[in-house]
Amino acid sequence: GMPIFDSIAHAMTTLATGGYSTKSESLAAFNSSSIEIIIIFGMLVGSLPFVHYLALTKKGIKNLIKDDQVKLFLTLVFFVVLIMSLYLSSNNIPYLEALRLASFNVISIITGTGFGTSDFNNWGGFPTTILLILMFVGGCAGSTTCGLRMARIQVLIANAKAQVSKLIRPHAVVVSYYNQKPIPENVAESVMGFFFLYIISFAVIACLLGGLGLDLITAISGAASAIGNVGPGLGDIIGPSGSYQSIPDIGKLILCAGMILGRLEIFAILVMFSPLFWKN
Amino acid sequence: GMPIFDSIAHAMTTLATGGYSTKSESLAAFNSSSIEIIIIFGMLVGSLPFVHYLALTKKGIKNLIKDDQVKLFLTLVFFVVLIMSLYLSSNNIPYLEALRLASFNVISIITGTGFGTSDFNNWGGFPTTILLILMFVGGCAGSTTCGLRMARIQVLIANAKAQVSKLIRPHAVVVSYYNQKPIPENVAESVMGFFFLYIISFAVIACLLGGLGLDLITAISGAASAIGNVGPGLGDIIGPSGSYQSIPDIGKLILCAGMILGRLEIFAILVMFSPLFWKN
Repeated sequence: GMPIFDSIAHAMTTLATGGYSTKSESLAAFNSSSIEIIIIFGMLVGSLPFVHYLALTKKGIKNLIKDDQVKLFLTLVFFVVLIMSLYLSSNNIPYLEALRLASFNVISIITGTGFGTSDFNNWGGFPTTILLILMFVGGCAGSTTCGLRMARIQVLIANAKAQVSKLIRPHAVVVSYYNQKPIPENVAESVMGFFFLYIISFAVIACLLGGLGLDLITAISGAASAIGNVGPGLGDIIGPSGSYQSIPDIGKLILCAGMILGRLEIFAILVMFSPLFWKN
Repeated sequence: GMPIFDSIAHAMTTLATGGYSTKSESLAAFNSSSIEIIIIFGMLVGSLPFVHYLALTKKGIKNLIKDDQVKLFLTLVFFVVLIMSLYLSSNNIPYLEALRLASFNVISIITGTGFGTSDFNNWGGFPTTILLILMFVGGCAGSTTCGLRMARIQVLIANAKAQVSKLIRPHAVVVSYYNQKPIPENVAESVMGFFFLYIISFAVIACLLGGLGLDLITAISGAASAIGNVGPGLGDIIGPSGSYQSIPDIGKLILCAGMILGRLEIFAILVMFSPLFWKN
């Protein structure tokens, strides 16, 4: 039920997990569950690793589903949507409506797309806390999504597990695996360095935004949203029914820096600021 | 100007960076800047590495000041207090009063002591964002403070720097240093694993608290405060002028779990949940 221009525009911003809409109320303007289902499918497809699509013709869907990243991502999405929809339906929203709201908005945030069909600000502390954390998560590595991404999170979990087993058996040689292959040590170190820098960048941006007089929720959700390239934040100002219009100009520049930092995966930017890089 | 009982009680909870007060308004009840200065000194002393005190008699104060952790901690405290007091004084608080408020409350939060002389909730977005982040920081390793602590943060920074230089010179052997000594690889991995688990534990506790119907600020600051063993959180409920009394019982149990997890440095608890640990 979408006009042709709107449908082409939305198709492009869905697959690119960009989240721009032709309407300022975003997808809420159309209020059609079939459109939402199509876009949910599109957002999920856009946040799976693209390299597997090339292999689809040869090896079929099995190869995609067998990937550790894809498994974790789909499981995570499934459980978060389930818990969130149960929570919303316990707050006097009919279950199907709750499922529709939860699935669309959770997938929109975790994939960093940023479409909205409802002001999730008013859903209460539980959904907003989860959505804030999802802004950091992102989709699979090798997709258009930002954030930490599944592959990195899996490497981090594998390393944490290895540390615990080393404590129990200090002399054991513990090897972490990802996709049935051992994780090279330099990859693990690089991922852990990235995680630390991601959190530090978030903290710095949040402080700077707070310094401009924004409230705590706007500052931290704006920082998380910018660095994760999500779009909407939380709170009355930059929430899904608000906009970044009223943020001071310096704040917009800070958010721009955060978005570039997140999009280019931090290291690429930091390298430019290193004196070593400019030496030769 | 403190009665003898109060002074002994406060002396003990200051050095232990515990932060219990004999008054429910905490240190605000005494409203004495000389008491506050003594307690600031006590909190700082309590968050420096204790092992150096033993060496004080032999090698003097230089050995303490030369330590990388102590340097970073004191520099960090100095700059945060400076920025915060400038910010407060720009909001129509006389500078000396702003300095007194900023220094006491910043040091109380970063050391995880948790005394309060003012409801920093009402200070605005900038101070609250910074205080929330300080809850994660903590004092020096080898002190009574909780949180990530200086030594770990320094190892994390050193690793992140090493990753950036590796990107520029992929074949270089990059060694990270801490206190003029190279950081062993297993120490770096363990610290990075700890950082990841710390953030994950925080996120899980924040979600659980949100699930009990607490608002976003209470959920995230409560989680940060519990796992960092700080004490007060942010927001109207658990802020410095509120209390945890109205938190539901399950919430208190979750916070207890968070406090134990933070106090015993996470790994010790996770080891107990590993099947390997119970095998022999």
